Amino acid sequence: MNSGTEARTTATVAVDLMGGDYAPDAAIEGCVAALEQGTHILALGDAEAIAKLRSRGDSPNLETIECSQVITLDDPPVSAIRHKKDSTIVRGLNAVKAGQAGGFVSAGSTGALVAGGVLIIRRAKGIDRPCLGMVLPSRSKPGVLFVDLGASSDVRPETLVQFGLMGRIYAERVLGWDEPTVGLLNIGAEEGKGNMTARKAYSLMQAAPLNFVGNVEARDVFFGKADVVVTDGFTGNVFLKTCEGTVLFQMETIREQVDRSMRSRLGGLLMKPVFRKLGEVLDYSSYGGAPLLGLEGCVVKCHGSSGATAIANGIAQALKFISNDVASIICETISEIHRDQS
Amino acid sequence: MNSGTEARTTATVAVDLMGGDYAPDAAIEGCVAALEQGTHILALGDAEAIAKLRSRGDSPNLETIECSQVITLDDPPVSAIRHKKDSTIVRGLNAVKAGQAGGFVSAGSTGALVAGGVLIIRRAKGIDRPCLGMVLPSRSKPGVLFVDLGASSDVRPETLVQFGLMGRIYAERVLGWDEPTVGLLNIGAEEGKGNMTARKAYSLMQAAPLNFVGNVEARDVFFGKADVVVTDGFTGNVFLKTCEGTVLFQMETIREQVDRSMRSRLGGLLMKPVFRKLGEVLDYSSYGGAPLLGLEGCVVKCHGSSGATAIANGIAQALKFISNDVASIICETISEIHRDQS
Repeated sequence: MNSGTEARTTATVAVDLMGGDYAPDAAIEGCVAALEQGTHILALGDAEAIAKLRSRGDSPNLETIECSQVITLDDPPVSAIRHKKDSTIVRGLNAVKAGQAGGFVSAGSTGALVAGGVLIIRRAKGIDRPCLGMVLPSRSKPGVLFVDLGASSDVRPETLVQFGLMGRIYAERVLGWDEPTVGLLNIGAEEGKGNMTARKAYSLMQAAPLNFVGNVEARDVFFGKADVVVTDGFTGNVFLKTCEGTVLFQMETIREQVDRSMRSRLGGLLMKPVFRKLGEVLDYSSYGGAPLLGLEGCVVKCHGSSGATAIANGIAQALKFISNDVASIICETISEIHRDQS
Repeated sequence: MNSGTEARTTATVAVDLMGGDYAPDAAIEGCVAALEQGTHILALGDAEAIAKLRSRGDSPNLETIECSQVITLDDPPVSAIRHKKDSTIVRGLNAVKAGQAGGFVSAGSTGALVAGGVLIIRRAKGIDRPCLGMVLPSRSKPGVLFVDLGASSDVRPETLVQFGLMGRIYAERVLGWDEPTVGLLNIGAEEGKGNMTARKAYSLMQAAPLNFVGNVEARDVFFGKADVVVTDGFTGNVFLKTCEGTVLFQMETIREQVDRSMRSRLGGLLMKPVFRKLGEVLDYSSYGGAPLLGLEGCVVKCHGSSGATAIANGIAQALKFISNDVASIICETISEIHRDQS
């Protein structure tokens, strides 16, 4: 962390104007909303986007960086980070690295943000691998923080313990959850269940300062068994995509069946508010952006379909992350554990 | 395989009367239905269940074995197989091993059936690990055969290739699907995606006689991307439980929202047939039992909540498996590949 400019950087959030389906307008409006709250913004985009932003909400709290390149969803991530040096993502991450901003928010390519986060900002000391967290809906709590959604596919048992620690710290310090519990995604409730990595992780997590509640089956993630649920990036990504596919399958089946009779069509019409509400509940982008945990700085990945509110929420998250010094707390906690173990 | 008694065993299906939520009645009625079709049944149960079966449908095609023990869902699987020697599951599997029956159908403990299958019937020559397959609903096909649902949590890339082969053979010979395609469950469509095991498995599967269509994302499993989808048992079990949890979450949210107004309640009533139909579509137990593939005999695991029809369907599946000699075809196919590779 760059202490010389700390007063300036701790309040500055870098924002990618060019990422996501509704770029640059969503990010522009998100920045405008954040600027109205007094947030210091460092906006990155092409000339047109920057001009549009300045015309919408110029402010002494606004800095901008004009970039000539954009990393698209089709660009192979590591290659894009290495070659598109003047892209909003690379320059945004570099701004965090250099201390120009305390965090970076983007709705762009997840792969590039993760690859770039590791290559440019770099992992915090002692961290094995970064993890992407996301708050998902829950029937009995404000939400459930799920890590890892896909940053790290191959993990050791020790990595999962770190994910649990990082998730717990984020849940406490940014989400404001009181003494959050941590569970391990597994294929059975009892200790001793699962593959080798899960079995080993279970015993390590029991011994860690985690508030560990044991295994959580995939069926129970949405039902409040734990506040933070931990798994590797491969399994986590499968979990998330499975939810999406299941919801889609159900809605398509319902739609097809509704069309079969006047009676069901009428029923469907009367139930429109219910389905709309269901859509809201399931729209996890409304719960905020996904933090990339384990780096020496803050990166928040907003959903690709984020509108202005989601981007503004992502900026607010990044601000909380920075002002609560989450990255340092993660570092210290991991170091303490290593000290205790040696 | 015991060739001396082949004429007798190939038509005989052993059935566990004591497994599942509706034991013994569901299994009894399932056996009665199968006997009416001319199937040779070897029924295993306690004295009472056997007496009840004989009173419902005695037949020259019915043999019975009285067992004094039952393996419950709470029994640790391997321990149960080792110690409850007079249970329906152990004696049923032994009957297959001894050639008294060509296959065993049970709605009992999945863990015990898998452990027992490997310990008693044993893996077919050349098979790394067994896999549990299940036909899931699909929006664009009769179904999608998903392997492995949880028999083998830790796998090598080569194991996944074998799962693909076994799945393909089962889909062709028992499900009667025409030239089924095989896909690898992964976290991205492109080659090179996923964890180390998935990446290695991808290249091996491309080279195998599989009709391999590449990666299938979890979101697309229900949408016809491939007829057979392959993954390891840990990921597969997470996939299945995630579907269950998502459906439950949606239905509870809908139910809760429906109760909020007269209008929605009326809508909900009118839409009852739609939700009933959705329940039927999602009820994968109606698509048949789950075959345990890779053993020197046939084991079909029926869903715990199976009724008589589901059990009868499981028996029919086992019969097809036996009469199409699926276990031998799997063996020969695996041997051919090993020969080609050496």
